[in-house]
Amino acid sequence: MNSERDRARTGNGPVVISVDAMGGDRGPAAVVAGIVRSATINPDIRFILHGPRDELERLISRRKQLRDRCEIRDAAGVVTMHDKPSQVMRNGKDTSMWSTLDCVRNGEATVAVSCGNTGALMALSMIRLRKLPGVNRPAIAILWPSRNPQGFNVMLDVGADIRADARDLLQYALMGASYARNGLNLPVPRVGLLNVGTEEHKGRAELKEAHDLIGDLAEQGKYEFVGFVEGGDIPGNTCDVIVTDGFTGNVALKTGEGTASLIGDLLREAFAYTPLSRLASLLAYTSLRRLKKRIDPRRVNGGVFLGLNGTVVKSHGSADATGISSAVKLAFELAQSGFADRLAARVASAAELAQDDAQAEQQKESGT
Amino acid sequence: MNSERDRARTGNGPVVISVDAMGGDRGPAAVVAGIVRSATINPDIRFILHGPRDELERLISRRKQLRDRCEIRDAAGVVTMHDKPSQVMRNGKDTSMWSTLDCVRNGEATVAVSCGNTGALMALSMIRLRKLPGVNRPAIAILWPSRNPQGFNVMLDVGADIRADARDLLQYALMGASYARNGLNLPVPRVGLLNVGTEEHKGRAELKEAHDLIGDLAEQGKYEFVGFVEGGDIPGNTCDVIVTDGFTGNVALKTGEGTASLIGDLLREAFAYTPLSRLASLLAYTSLRRLKKRIDPRRVNGGVFLGLNGTVVKSHGSADATGISSAVKLAFELAQSGFADRLAARVASAAELAQDDAQAEQQKESGT
Repeated sequence: MNSERDRARTGNGPVVISVDAMGGDRGPAAVVAGIVRSATINPDIRFILHGPRDELERLISRRKQLRDRCEIRDAAGVVTMHDKPSQVMRNGKDTSMWSTLDCVRNGEATVAVSCGNTGALMALSMIRLRKLPGVNRPAIAILWPSRNPQGFNVMLDVGADIRADARDLLQYALMGASYARNGLNLPVPRVGLLNVGTEEHKGRAELKEAHDLIGDLAEQGKYEFVGFVEGGDIPGNTCDVIVTDGFTGNVALKTGEGTASLIGDLLREAFAYTPLSRLASLLAYTSLRRLKKRIDPRRVNGGVFLGLNGTVVKSHGSADATGISSAVKLAFELAQSGFADRLAARVASAAELAQDDAQAEQQKESGT
Repeated sequence: MNSERDRARTGNGPVVISVDAMGGDRGPAAVVAGIVRSATINPDIRFILHGPRDELERLISRRKQLRDRCEIRDAAGVVTMHDKPSQVMRNGKDTSMWSTLDCVRNGEATVAVSCGNTGALMALSMIRLRKLPGVNRPAIAILWPSRNPQGFNVMLDVGADIRADARDLLQYALMGASYARNGLNLPVPRVGLLNVGTEEHKGRAELKEAHDLIGDLAEQGKYEFVGFVEGGDIPGNTCDVIVTDGFTGNVALKTGEGTASLIGDLLREAFAYTPLSRLASLLAYTSLRRLKKRIDPRRVNGGVFLGLNGTVVKSHGSADATGISSAVKLAFELAQSGFADRLAARVASAAELAQDDAQAEQQKESGT
């Protein structure tokens, strides 16, 4: 058992991913179809699947790709999109979401994946996995299509918490940089702090304080701080990591998604408008498919919960098989890079440094 | 003089628009090209153009469309994009921006148009035009491409002020609804309050209070309140007016613009990729042009400053002739609808009602 746990943690040998089969808008069939895809592509993944045993057994029995690679854990309860996080924390012990997280908690799996209720998943993650030492507010980080060579930027927090003070924003910078290093393979990610103007005299008080904190810890945190950035930099190329509070980040994320989706629909309409344009869309099929793939939110499906003892990937509630498979791919990559342990080490050492700085400052001020 | 002023205010006869020729990224030539376009299309517009007389005279002398329809007011000073609002307020008397606003202040023109520094323009507008009675914080409202039949939604504030309390958000709802009635021709606009979840228990405290205030004044304000909305509703069809603070609104606006611009560039790349796709883009030329027109930010160019004694249209700093002409068109439509006076009346009566409510509540609480 112990050696199995070690393997799950270090990422040598097969990676075990704990998957919540329930709570998504399309039900467990879409989740199973998604993990089948991942299993087909990647021989190094194993799954522990959580939900009502009978239903899940029926779904996976026909899938030979999952044979000997997918274990079922029976959980009768389901967290719905309407359940309040507080209720789930009190009465959710029998749910598939709880069971999914507990496999990471006890070391059987390295990463958890769920497409259920975000608020409940974050609340349960906080009590089952607990926050990392030195982290006050965990955050949800997402990948956003960008003009950068790596094709994506990291943005956090996109909705774990609607508040964030200067110190929380510093934690987000450290965690986001760590994610960009391991998830996007950028040795020294460039970090920007989201504001309404790039001049230093603008913006809210906590942002000015955060600006100084994040700048001060750049070297220790192994990132470059580019200062304040604006909404246009989220899909831009001025930085790789965009740090903001969960309220602003959530609005930005959903505005961007909504705008992209509107443009996609208008594009389809434009191509359907005349016989000539319909012919054109046939000719351009491959090119448009490439574009679609590049900006398809399903391909970057997966918000990552950062700042916990263990990694949780939150897939879109409406994710189909493609979306689930992307979330599993992200989970696998993070597991293999040993991301959770590296992040923990980085945040802990930075917290210590910040602590030392604060103490040194206090001592200086009190003249000792 | 007096009758001329009356005409400028009521919108009978030609509409006089006060235009700042300076401060845009492309200089006065782009501004003159823009007003030439507007003058060609619309015989009912007159202009007062502000900037260095020699330069402007040289630019308009060759434009016969502007003959007898464009008066020049000499102003030597220019507000640059780097000037701080506080400096401009103290030392900006000789600038074209100051002169542009003063024509609205003294009634010679109905609407002012400028593509200069937003912060300075708002600061000068506050001191030259002054706030409407009952308004605490003026706001900048923009039109955003949406799925609604009118093709656009109104969003405010997008950056006049980074703070907004519950009462400010109520004012934004009233002003935004008034703008949608006059600018988008919607008799009873649907107003939504931007939040991170549509459930009433989520979000910041000031948003819960604003939710109640905006709901209570819906009938008097002649709008329908749809409650909380999310970022995805900004380009959506659940409401016509999106109310938020200037920090969040500015981030949302710039994220949306950045995302749309990224997709546009990727689309161009996709079409240039293979000979077949290049042929396709030729075939689809008209359809793509239609789409481009629909989402071209230059076509909806113009943030409107609301809550002042007079209307100010802020054009994009990088606006070209098309952009300037769109801003002038918007200014003309608002002037013709008598928008400023209607907005003032609506806000004043609502402020009175809110005052009455507050007093009644106080009396109830104190038992008198």
